[in-house]
This record gives sequence, structure tokens and C-alpha cells, in this order.
Amino acid sequence: MNNPIKIAVDAMGGENSPKKIIEGIKLHSLVSKDIFYNIFGDENLILPLIKKSKLFDNSYKIIHTAEIIKDEDSPLSAAKKGKNTSMWLSIESLKKKESDAIISAGNTGALFVIAKLNLKMIDRIDKPALSALWPNRNGMNIVLDLGANIECNEKNLVDFSLMGSALHKSLFQDENPKVAILNIGSEELKGNNTIKNTYQILMENKNPLFQFKGYVEGNQIMDGDVNVIVTDGFTGNVALKTAEGTANFITSELKKTLNSSLLGKISSILNIKNLKKFKNKLDPRLYNGAILLGLDKPVIKSHGSTDEIGFANSLNVCEKIIKGQLIDKIKKNII
Amino acid sequence: MNNPIKIAVDAMGGENSPKKIIEGIKLHSLVSKDIFYNIFGDENLILPLIKKSKLFDNSYKIIHTAEIIKDEDSPLSAAKKGKNTSMWLSIESLKKKESDAIISAGNTGALFVIAKLNLKMIDRIDKPALSALWPNRNGMNIVLDLGANIECNEKNLVDFSLMGSALHKSLFQDENPKVAILNIGSEELKGNNTIKNTYQILMENKNPLFQFKGYVEGNQIMDGDVNVIVTDGFTGNVALKTAEGTANFITSELKKTLNSSLLGKISSILNIKNLKKFKNKLDPRLYNGAILLGLDKPVIKSHGSTDEIGFANSLNVCEKIIKGQLIDKIKKNII
Repeated sequence: MNNPIKIAVDAMGGENSPKKIIEGIKLHSLVSKDIFYNIFGDENLILPLIKKSKLFDNSYKIIHTAEIIKDEDSPLSAAKKGKNTSMWLSIESLKKKESDAIISAGNTGALFVIAKLNLKMIDRIDKPALSALWPNRNGMNIVLDLGANIECNEKNLVDFSLMGSALHKSLFQDENPKVAILNIGSEELKGNNTIKNTYQILMENKNPLFQFKGYVEGNQIMDGDVNVIVTDGFTGNVALKTAEGTANFITSELKKTLNSSLLGKISSILNIKNLKKFKNKLDPRLYNGAILLGLDKPVIKSHGSTDEIGFANSLNVCEKIIKGQLIDKIKKNII
Repeated sequence: MNNPIKIAVDAMGGENSPKKIIEGIKLHSLVSKDIFYNIFGDENLILPLIKKSKLFDNSYKIIHTAEIIKDEDSPLSAAKKGKNTSMWLSIESLKKKESDAIISAGNTGALFVIAKLNLKMIDRIDKPALSALWPNRNGMNIVLDLGANIECNEKNLVDFSLMGSALHKSLFQDENPKVAILNIGSEELKGNNTIKNTYQILMENKNPLFQFKGYVEGNQIMDGDVNVIVTDGFTGNVALKTAEGTANFITSELKKTLNSSLLGKISSILNIKNLKKFKNKLDPRLYNGAILLGLDKPVIKSHGSTDEIGFANSLNVCEKIIKGQLIDKIKKNII
């Protein structure tokens, strides 16, 4: 391998780790040949899994530590636990330039705080934002912020626009992504002052690196007419979770209905291939991987409850972000 | 009819009106015998429809006006158009005690402003809130505010709790509804100050007329563990629209998938009864009818794009609210 991409993997976070982490690495390594994995965690647990998965010897290194951050740790207590945890060490390897991106399926708040303690903010970005892929009729949106900042000002929302469009460019190679602000469509005066001011700023100071398309409403998020949807972390988190809840509700109602009679069961079996296709299209593992934007290195959060397939997909997000030169693109977008 | 319930119906609002309005009244009148409809709008359009629908002669009165408020009118220009529009006259009939509740499928902002101009606020309620039914695993939630107030303080959210629980009681006859505040589950400090203060107030000053259950997240709205979910109008509107968008996206993807092969089509036909059951359960017409709470008379907004079945269902909401003595229940909840 010439100059492989190096991904720092916190192997100890999330449900069923490190098993799913190592199996996810194996899956990813089968399709991505030029990646080196710096794996942080308990060697006694990791090594047998790696042997079983037959990961190529020259594609990884284990950096042993028995200390881990738990899901129930508060961000503060996690930060205090500190410097010998698998999460801290994996983030620190970015600071030491031993890795190009970090991924963890562990405690989100802790990841957020420890990343901020170890990494620098990109110049002229005030607040980091949590962004994620959101499926739509034509592919995938980026939505941000999804919970890093409960309150945001105009400058933050403008920053999110340019960081989100840089992310969309690095993931999907489109030259000129379309950005919109999430708003409400009440016939009352639309939105709060922060939103209206952000709209003015983005309209008046056109950024040549993305197209500003104005407002979208919640029911338009999945229309696929825009690529990047900007909102404060409170609203974004409620929208994301509401969409998840609605999707779960509908698919479980569908399942119940299809199984409610013998004829229903038989015809569902006949239709199983189509139903599987449907399920695959909506599979949350496909768009697993939230990206913390604003720090000068890529920090990726895998869903804690995902499996090895979901984790492999978020490794793919890491790879695309590094190859797509996300951080450089963000810096270029700051004009 | 002894002392029938009188509903003021703005016949001119929304798509395909007054046709769907009159047909909706007819559908409702077939199941609800003790209702009198005061129908406001253009007699030349309404009368032929009533004749065709064979509505009972003694169950309605037409109050003629040719003036209407359009969907594209701003709330202000609608209010200026004023006193001879079907919307204004129908609301005014509450003030004159000629009707017990008003329903319109027209311009929401205009309805809101004209209702506030004509009707009094309930004592000690500061702001009206738009509330609606939201399906969940066990039945229906009430969610409010859905867009009447972009920014809300602690007092408003507490008011929404007691108004929402009064509404749930009048619709579903439960004695002690469970109320929760919509919040986010980031590991960061949860929620903004308004939300945290509201939580404190509701915890410390227990209202015997509802149970306060703390916070829920967006993905829990449809779990059916609580009956009333309280939020500011901006967040509520985004959540509602995001849920609508997600439901539309999923059902259209499902349709596409089931029709993508011959075998799929055949088995869908075999399964058509079950798929219909599924569709019916999620049919938005079933929970059509948003209720403006806080005024001293019931004001109900039907979705503009619903059909006669949806409109009949929102007439049913009017009927239940009047029979369930909503306004009295709200007043009793203010302790």
C-alpha cells in the first residue's frame, strides 16, 4: 500500500462491540483495498475476533487499552476518565497525525467533548455541527445540525450552510449543491428572527460554491429538491427522531397488517423479493454515520445500535470524506 | 330536535369547496342526528348541492354571502376584507351565540386572526395554540402547538399542557391524561431554558387533572405512552410536517416497489384487503381537524386539501368537543 488512508477506529463503543466493529472493518476491507485501520481497544477481546475474521495482517494495528467510555457516562465524566480510554486515544491519533479520520459507535456527547478538547476548530467556524445523511426521492440529503447546538445564531446557520455543502460535495462529487433553511409554512410571518436574518445574509452574499434555495418545510425534506438542509440542533434533532419514529410506526403497522390473515401471509411470501427491496431502500444501515463538522479533522459517529453492515457503511463514509478532501473543501467554502 | 348542537360551517374554504363541505355535512348528518348546521357562503353554489345531497330540511340554514377569503390572502388583508366574508360571519355567529363551534377548511392564518378579533381569550390563558390528533400505537395523541406561536415561554407551555389535556378528555373521555414535553435526547444538557423551567413548574405544581410524565423525544411521539405532547409552534410544525413527509415517502416507495414486477402486482392484488386496512389505519382523513385552543369558543380547522370524508371527520371532532364540554374542561384545568 502506497500512502494508505488511515482510519482511527474506537473499537469499544456501542452495542455488541468490539465484535461488530471488527466484522464491520472486515466487510469494509473487502471492498476498499487502500485503507489502514488503527484499532483502539482491548487487545484480549479484539485479537481473537481479528483472527476469526481473517483481516489482512498489513491492514491494521491494534493500540491496546482496557479503559473505555460507557454509554451512560456524562460527557464531563467521560472527559475526566480521559486519556487512556479507547475513544480519547483514537481521537488523539488525529492530533498526532497518525490517522486521517476517527470513527466511534460510542457515547455521542463524550465523543463531541473529547473531540473538541483534542482538535482545533476550523478558522472562522464558531460551532461544530452534527450532520447526517437523510434519504430522499432522488438520493441523499445532508441535514444539520442534528443536536450539537440547541441554540444557533445567524453566523452558525451560515457556517452550517457552507460546511454542509462541502460535505455533500465530498460525498457525492456534485459541484454546486442546493442549500435550504428548514422553516415552517404557517400563514403567520414565517420563522423566527434568526432564520429570517440568515435568509437575508445568504440571499445578499451569494456564495459561488453552493446555491441558496430559500426555505423548505418539514414535509419537503424528502422531496429531493435540495441537497443540504440547515437548522438549529434542537429542531434538527426533533425532525430526525420524528422521521425515525414515523418510519418505525409505519413499517411495524405494515408488518402487522400483512401478517393478519393467511392469504396475507401467502401473498407477502410471494412478494417477499419486492418487500425486501423496499426494506433495503429504507434500511437505516445504508445511511449510518453522522459527521461532526467544524473541527479541523473528520470525526464520524456510527449509530450505537447498528450492526457490522451499518458500521462498514460508516467506514465507507470516512473513506469518502478523506478522499473527497472534506476539510479542504470547508476551508475553501469560507470566503 | 330538542336543543340541537349548532355548528357554524364556513362552506367556502379549501380545495373543491363548497362541494366537499356540503357532501361532508351530509355524511356527518347520517351518523349524527342532533346537529344543526349554520352554513355560511354563496347560496347559488350551496343550494343545488344541498338539494342533490338530500340533506334534511330542518337540519340546516344557509346564511348567504358572496364574499370569501382566499387561500392566498394574507391574514391582515383577510381581516380587512372583513365582515361580510363567509369566514367572518361564521365566526361571528359564535359571538352572537347562534352557534356552538365554528369549522372552516379555509386560510389558517386568516381563521386565526379573525377568530382572535371576534372571540375572547379564556381567562388566564395568554396565547391560543393549534392542536391536532396524531396517530400512535394505541390510538391518538394530541400535539400542540403546531404553528400558532413561533416562540413560547414557560407560561405558554404550561397553558398548552392544561388545554391539551382538557381536549384529550373531551374527545376520549379519559380521566387523567398523560402529558409530556417534546425535547431532544442529546447527551448534552437537555433542552433550552424554557423547556427546563416548564419541566420544573409542572413537576412542582402537580395539576390533579393530568399526569405530567416529563420529556419525550421525536421518535416517541407515536409510541402511545402519553396522550398530550407539548411544544412550541415552530418545533411542533416542523415535527408534524416531517412526519407527514416521511409517511408520504414511505408509502410511495412501497407502492413503487409492489408494482415493480408482475409477481409483485399479483400478490399485491391477493393482499389488497390487508393493504387497504393498512392504508385506512394511516388515512390522514381519519384525524382531520386541528383545534385552536385558548379562545372561549371552539374553533376547528379542517385541512384545506381533504375531501368530504375528511371534512365529515372534522365535523365529528366539532361534535365531540361540544358534547365533551371542552371549554368548561379547560377552565376547570386552570387551577
